[in-house]
Amino acid sequence: MRVAIVGATGAVGHELLQVLEKSSLRFDELLLYASPRSAGTALKFRGEDLTVQVTPEGAIDADLILASAGGSVSQALAPKWVEGGAVVIDNSSAFRYDPEVPLVVPEVNGPAALRHKGIIANPNCTTAIAVVAVAPLHREYGVRRMIVSTYQATSGAGQKGMDELLEETRTALGGGEAGAEVFAHPIPFNVIPHIDAFQANGYTKEEMKVVWETRKILEDESLQISCTAVRIPTLRTHSEAITLDLERPATPEAARELLAGAAGVEVRDDPAAKLYPMPLTASGKYDVEVGRIRPSLVFEGGLDLFVAGDQLLKGAALNAVQIAEYLQQQGALKEKQRA
Amino acid sequence: MRVAIVGATGAVGHELLQVLEKSSLRFDELLLYASPRSAGTALKFRGEDLTVQVTPEGAIDADLILASAGGSVSQALAPKWVEGGAVVIDNSSAFRYDPEVPLVVPEVNGPAALRHKGIIANPNCTTAIAVVAVAPLHREYGVRRMIVSTYQATSGAGQKGMDELLEETRTALGGGEAGAEVFAHPIPFNVIPHIDAFQANGYTKEEMKVVWETRKILEDESLQISCTAVRIPTLRTHSEAITLDLERPATPEAARELLAGAAGVEVRDDPAAKLYPMPLTASGKYDVEVGRIRPSLVFEGGLDLFVAGDQLLKGAALNAVQIAEYLQQQGALKEKQRA
Repeated sequence: MRVAIVGATGAVGHELLQVLEKSSLRFDELLLYASPRSAGTALKFRGEDLTVQVTPEGAIDADLILASAGGSVSQALAPKWVEGGAVVIDNSSAFRYDPEVPLVVPEVNGPAALRHKGIIANPNCTTAIAVVAVAPLHREYGVRRMIVSTYQATSGAGQKGMDELLEETRTALGGGEAGAEVFAHPIPFNVIPHIDAFQANGYTKEEMKVVWETRKILEDESLQISCTAVRIPTLRTHSEAITLDLERPATPEAARELLAGAAGVEVRDDPAAKLYPMPLTASGKYDVEVGRIRPSLVFEGGLDLFVAGDQLLKGAALNAVQIAEYLQQQGALKEKQRA
Repeated sequence: MRVAIVGATGAVGHELLQVLEKSSLRFDELLLYASPRSAGTALKFRGEDLTVQVTPEGAIDADLILASAGGSVSQALAPKWVEGGAVVIDNSSAFRYDPEVPLVVPEVNGPAALRHKGIIANPNCTTAIAVVAVAPLHREYGVRRMIVSTYQATSGAGQKGMDELLEETRTALGGGEAGAEVFAHPIPFNVIPHIDAFQANGYTKEEMKVVWETRKILEDESLQISCTAVRIPTLRTHSEAITLDLERPATPEAARELLAGAAGVEVRDDPAAKLYPMPLTASGKYDVEVGRIRPSLVFEGGLDLFVAGDQLLKGAALNAVQIAEYLQQQGALKEKQRA
């Protein structure tokens, strides 16, 4: 089987290579593609040097394409890749809201992936991280309302986001005035409640993605969800404060036990030992850390919790590879006939 | 009239001097006190050098004492200061929950200050900032539920908190491993959902302070409030994402107009122009920035908003001086008879 990564030199592409290296996915060949600016680079994979090629304008002769080169690239090329016989797992937002395209977090709605017509969408990072923790609670207690405030890392804007944080922090510490190119304002020692474009309803697209995508993944359009998405000066891992109004009352103890047995979750919830989710401990980790589980003070029988998940992994690269692994395990990922 | 500052060399003490310098409060003499470790320092005030003295164990011959030396100092000494005839405005949490002690944010419940029996408590910084924005909305629309997620600066832990952020960030940028003494974990490029001690209900004391103090200041014990208090790598100014369930429906437009006329508030809410509350713009400012005002997606007729307030100012020093100004304007702050 032949796998291709489109957008191999970006922050998510980098993680895709790392995750694939450790993955149980069986394949014979890996092709790497990027924009002309980055093509020619050699990237290591399982000890070999692979040369990054320019993403072609048409089909790619691969069985599986992991795309992470932005919405416009996917929008333009994914249909051609599908025509060429590949299954596409797309990390952009281009197809997430298409009713024909499954939006998948394998631990939550793996079987939805089997209904694909060529393209499977990978959710927004903030959604993927939240939903791993919330889905088991939704199944058991029925989430009615969900209020999310995010603490999002600069790597949500890719490698250039992290670079800007580091460079501008150095400038600020040196007594200079921090600038901003990637972000709307200087990010060092600042907080920016603005990620992606503002919508007519006053919410940003990032905030509405959490609403739209959580509903689609949990297959429940009645869910009431509100989000405030905030960029903070961290490098990787998004954290989220989540308040849940539940149909059936939950206790923190029962929720902790339920989540301890849930796939993709690490319960990290021992305040006396100073154990709770943090970017410092969640970065580089496959599981989403969940902690600070406590009874809601505004919804009777509801819960408050705090999660931290590496958004380059569970929020992007890892989830994409897990979708591929799931398809292969289900016998739904096959090598095409080649002449 | 003689004014004394106890805890003059701390982060809040520093701000108290600056705020007093610009204040309309009329007084003749300023006395500065601190612990033996900091005593002897000379601090500038209106062009003069004032020498910091060791805080005495008993009464201080002042008419007004602004205390910011921590809870144990206030607990032990404030009753003696009151016996000595001074009015005490206390920045610690020592007396905030005492039903005999008014807890005051002048814009919100100024008249409560007039009922003091010697001590007036200054609220927790997170509460002071939130309540300036929420009180006008509560008066007009009746807040039923309030959900707060905070983005708190290191200066909430005083000058040493800011120093630790700066030093450890330098270490991290230099390739070293950041350490932690002031905070429970390294703070550079990290997020710590742990401020003050954990309580039996799973909330931290910082989170419960927002619940207890908001109710006391708004004089409404029926208010349902939940808070997640999170330390982030910023220097000063706390930000807060606030979701409000209202008894009477509000529109963002009406709320914006109401808040534009509210004392202590600067409406900063023009997303198209990238204007919203941020530490970068709110730091050093007396008013609390309020923006991102939008209809709640989980409470019909409710609101979501984002606030940023300099917690060393409105959350501490400024509010204390404003209480003193209010008392003096009301003729309730008088020089005592001296031999």
